[in-house]
Amino acid sequence: MECQLTIDLTDQKKEKPAHDKLAFGVHFTDHMFVMDYTEGKGWHDPRIEPYSPLTIDPAAMVFHYGQAVFEGLKAYRNQEGEVRLFRPDQNFKRLNRSLTRLDMPTVDEAFMVEALKKLVSVEKEWIPTAEGTSLYIRPFVIATEACLGVRASHTYKLIILLSPVGAYYASGMKPVKIHVENSYVRAVRGGTGNAKTAGNYAGSLKAQTEAHEKGYEQVLWLDAIETKYIEEVGSMNVFFKVNGEAWTPMLNGSILEGITRDSTIQLLKAWGVNVVEKRISVEELFQAYQNGELEEAFGTGTAAVISPIGEMSWNGNKMVINGAKTGELTQKLYDTMTGIQYGVVEDEFGWSVKVTE
Amino acid sequence: MECQLTIDLTDQKKEKPAHDKLAFGVHFTDHMFVMDYTEGKGWHDPRIEPYSPLTIDPAAMVFHYGQAVFEGLKAYRNQEGEVRLFRPDQNFKRLNRSLTRLDMPTVDEAFMVEALKKLVSVEKEWIPTAEGTSLYIRPFVIATEACLGVRASHTYKLIILLSPVGAYYASGMKPVKIHVENSYVRAVRGGTGNAKTAGNYAGSLKAQTEAHEKGYEQVLWLDAIETKYIEEVGSMNVFFKVNGEAWTPMLNGSILEGITRDSTIQLLKAWGVNVVEKRISVEELFQAYQNGELEEAFGTGTAAVISPIGEMSWNGNKMVINGAKTGELTQKLYDTMTGIQYGVVEDEFGWSVKVTE
Ligand SMILES: Cc1ncc(COP(=O)(O)O)c(C=O)c1O
Ligand SMILES: Cc1ncc(COP(=O)(O)O)c(C=O)c1O
Repeated sequence: MECQLTIDLTDQKKEKPAHDKLAFGVHFTDHMFVMDYTEGKGWHDPRIEPYSPLTIDPAAMVFHYGQAVFEGLKAYRNQEGEVRLFRPDQNFKRLNRSLTRLDMPTVDEAFMVEALKKLVSVEKEWIPTAEGTSLYIRPFVIATEACLGVRASHTYKLIILLSPVGAYYASGMKPVKIHVENSYVRAVRGGTGNAKTAGNYAGSLKAQTEAHEKGYEQVLWLDAIETKYIEEVGSMNVFFKVNGEAWTPMLNGSILEGITRDSTIQLLKAWGVNVVEKRISVEELFQAYQNGELEEAFGTGTAAVISPIGEMSWNGNKMVINGAKTGELTQKLYDTMTGIQYGVVEDEFGWSVKVTE
Repeated sequence: MECQLTIDLTDQKKEKPAHDKLAFGVHFTDHMFVMDYTEGKGWHDPRIEPYSPLTIDPAAMVFHYGQAVFEGLKAYRNQEGEVRLFRPDQNFKRLNRSLTRLDMPTVDEAFMVEALKKLVSVEKEWIPTAEGTSLYIRPFVIATEACLGVRASHTYKLIILLSPVGAYYASGMKPVKIHVENSYVRAVRGGTGNAKTAGNYAGSLKAQTEAHEKGYEQVLWLDAIETKYIEEVGSMNVFFKVNGEAWTPMLNGSILEGITRDSTIQLLKAWGVNVVEKRISVEELFQAYQNGELEEAFGTGTAAVISPIGEMSWNGNKMVINGAKTGELTQKLYDTMTGIQYGVVEDEFGWSVKVTE
């Protein structure tokens, strides 16, 4: 067990950024949650304490052998002042799967959800209320033992940071231009693709930078084995509306199991849309496009929730989807999902979790 | 340019560990080299300063998106008190390749070699002299910007740590038992396998732990595409002596370009041994084994230099190599390479670099 959560509040509160000056992940709240792990003792000393720099040995294993996993979710505050989390249990479930893959100790999921609720309620005033704004939540675990042997660390730190973030679509939803990546890959079966671990992102930055230079906003990742099948878009899962059906790549070990992906599938099914989880080759998609059957495309993820794709470029072939405008189904998913998140649309799935004092 | 190196010596020297109490990477010297990078300004403020913990924001990108690369080399001190490095230019060349792959800023290789020499000479008394002992050198670069956006950091730190290490083979060379891994993979073409980046090691720990539990010391990694071709052994490159020839997997983008591998190839060629760099399937190797042609096997890497392989287990097939004893060629390579490293065998390649005051 993780024992009792202690709370040490700061008397030096920071100034909060203006609601219209919020970017992503640059402002942090006054406090953070911290918990330590020591082999033989387990997780201990869970606490809420003032946000402050870490003092960490330069030989700490996280810097060398990359044992680092993280999660990302949000707290939403609506006009009534109610604060909600969206399926937080799923994030800690996935954190445990990531921890296991990286040979790191798992946590008590129920305890973590409670600790998070407590942290969010302590920082309630930091949650912006303007439309589309929210409080981004970043739980992460890092290896802290000072040792250069290549093996799993014997000590870890779990930290939760909170960061008020602006609306992803400050000036309305804007479909993005996507580059289908043929050289770099994100992950491979047997690797760490379905774990939310730091190394996956490190490896993806170069492709992202090169795509930006070519004028694209995101990279569409193909499978590493045949460079043929669609995996993800940037840091999002991806869906295509083809001939009335919703297609999305099936989970295969190298794709991250997005919580927004799962929620999207459940919503679509509830609406009677046929959801097809399968291997999707770019070839097949391009054929559908040429036949006029590729109706909509969008990414799903916590940051953007639903992100319409307006254009995809593959080996010199350009697909302009739905006239580069946000599709109807895409918009409906966005409205419904965010409505549930802010507690203004009925939540028949029990996804929205109120943060009570 | 990196400007002038400044030196701040500690007046609180630590006690040095006894020569027979040295493990790997657990003791660190009194000082470290540090240099900072700021976008627009480049690398700046190179300095030798007392070894001390880092003060680093919990939102620092290294903890989240894993931009972290490292190197590993050694300083050797012989009976005459001479201190030598082994091909340090190659390590900083590789560091730059790793940095480039991870979308991080490169360094001035010549400057780094000079800075390293200076650091090593400051810490000269820390270099153990007992046979097989050395000073392990760990240069590494980490992303330090406090921001949760998924993009390359704008600030970095390059640090060099020094750690006196014991003899790898304290009680003589001992061939290891290897498990051929069929499920987990280390790297894939288009990924980060040929970069020395933290995430590669994080992903490999689970397989290593499971192999240990089954009684094996190391994992032999197969290619991720077909799970058929041999890539590396643990954190080493691998060689096989087959029918008088030396086989080693060809560099393919997912294999780390080991400096010991390159040195081994050069030595073997100088000795008139035919070196074959090619795709090697386990199947082919097993056939050679059954035909009695698999004469020796060994890993190559900075830590162990040359590590004989006594047994390999693949899908229930057991290959016992050279009666599980160190082969003649393996031993000769070890003796020659370490001889050059300590400056007791003539170095016709110009690999050994004297550290002068
Ligand atoms: C690589 C990757 N894929 C997909 C997702 C989407 O996951 P989720 O919907 O749980 O945010 C994320 C996280 O945002 C991600 O980092
Ligand atoms: C994955 C991996 N392969 C191979 C090697 C061998 O490289 P080197 O001979 O340069 O030490 C290393 C480093 O030790 C490594 O980490």
